[in-house]
Amino acid sequence: MLEYPPPIRRLIAAFKQLPTVGPRSAERLALHMLKEGAHVSENLVQALNEVRSDVRRCKCCGFFSEEELCSICSDEKRDSTLACVVEEPSDVISFERSGAFTGKYHVLGGCLSPLDGIGPEELGVPRFLERAQRDGIKEVILGLNADAKGETTSVYLARELKELNITVTRLATGISVGGSLEFADSVTLSHALQDRKQV
Amino acid sequence: MLEYPPPIRRLIAAFKQLPTVGPRSAERLALHMLKEGAHVSENLVQALNEVRSDVRRCKCCGFFSEEELCSICSDEKRDSTLACVVEEPSDVISFERSGAFTGKYHVLGGCLSPLDGIGPEELGVPRFLERAQRDGIKEVILGLNADAKGETTSVYLARELKELNITVTRLATGISVGGSLEFADSVTLSHALQDRKQV
Repeated sequence: MLEYPPPIRRLIAAFKQLPTVGPRSAERLALHMLKEGAHVSENLVQALNEVRSDVRRCKCCGFFSEEELCSICSDEKRDSTLACVVEEPSDVISFERSGAFTGKYHVLGGCLSPLDGIGPEELGVPRFLERAQRDGIKEVILGLNADAKGETTSVYLARELKELNITVTRLATGISVGGSLEFADSVTLSHALQDRKQV
Repeated sequence: MLEYPPPIRRLIAAFKQLPTVGPRSAERLALHMLKEGAHVSENLVQALNEVRSDVRRCKCCGFFSEEELCSICSDEKRDSTLACVVEEPSDVISFERSGAFTGKYHVLGGCLSPLDGIGPEELGVPRFLERAQRDGIKEVILGLNADAKGETTSVYLARELKELNITVTRLATGISVGGSLEFADSVTLSHALQDRKQV
């Protein structure tokens, strides 16, 4: 049975390895590159190369940056005594889009996962604890995911931070703003009831 | 509001221009490139570059090829007196996967669309008519899509080919094999009734 020439098959395979791209999409993407002419493909190649060469992790917080320090860490108007710990760089963007946080961040790059060989060292926790003391951080907000790994990591971080006499807080749990009660799970609802507020 | 550094934003934009990729997927793909390390990105860059440098259109039929002639056109075991005209290279793969066609192909690369400036010249029709006479093609199967543009192009090609005394056929219309009648539209059903076969 005839198939596409090998270079096209390799491009389909390369696309198929990416998240959100299934076999049909991978084929469509590869054919798009061939149909649209060189500029689409060149544009993507250039963008991929630039990200690889120009983007690094901020030396201080672990967010993406073109410089040694990211734009948040080098912003002196932000409160450096308040830090929010998150798992991924994309979480920083989520908090920034909310516009409700004026402190700084620490990006772990994942969660504690001893079975995968990911301990405090791999997540840069010692480096963060040093920074907390050096910068005089007074409060750390744990902005990790509310799943099992996130919880474990939160418990660990809270213990370490409390030893340094740093206030540790976590995000409130409750129903989504504008969300329907129908879609709130029972654990979330019970948290929302416990933490109810007078109006 | 803080956003990703410019190189990441450009990569997200490059992904977003591709078919099947929405804003959320584009962001996920870009972050995947950063999280997975250089090899995933390099692999994709290499595959894109190879397709651009090594793949061309077959001089004879317009299918993808690494050589001047594609593997179908240079296969002497295939019937060169029978040709199937299709719109896109991917249609060749569809026919080949069916295993039911032993002739050769001609890939138009689209349909007649005078408003977009796509006439017979742009689709290489004169080249195909020359080839039909040179190769002694006896029958041309019109394998174009069954939409309005495909129909217009089929009517035009049929007229031109008949003038050269070439038999012109088209694909049968009817219900899908294994398909439910519930999902067949009424026009398809009426075609299927007209073309019914004795069992």
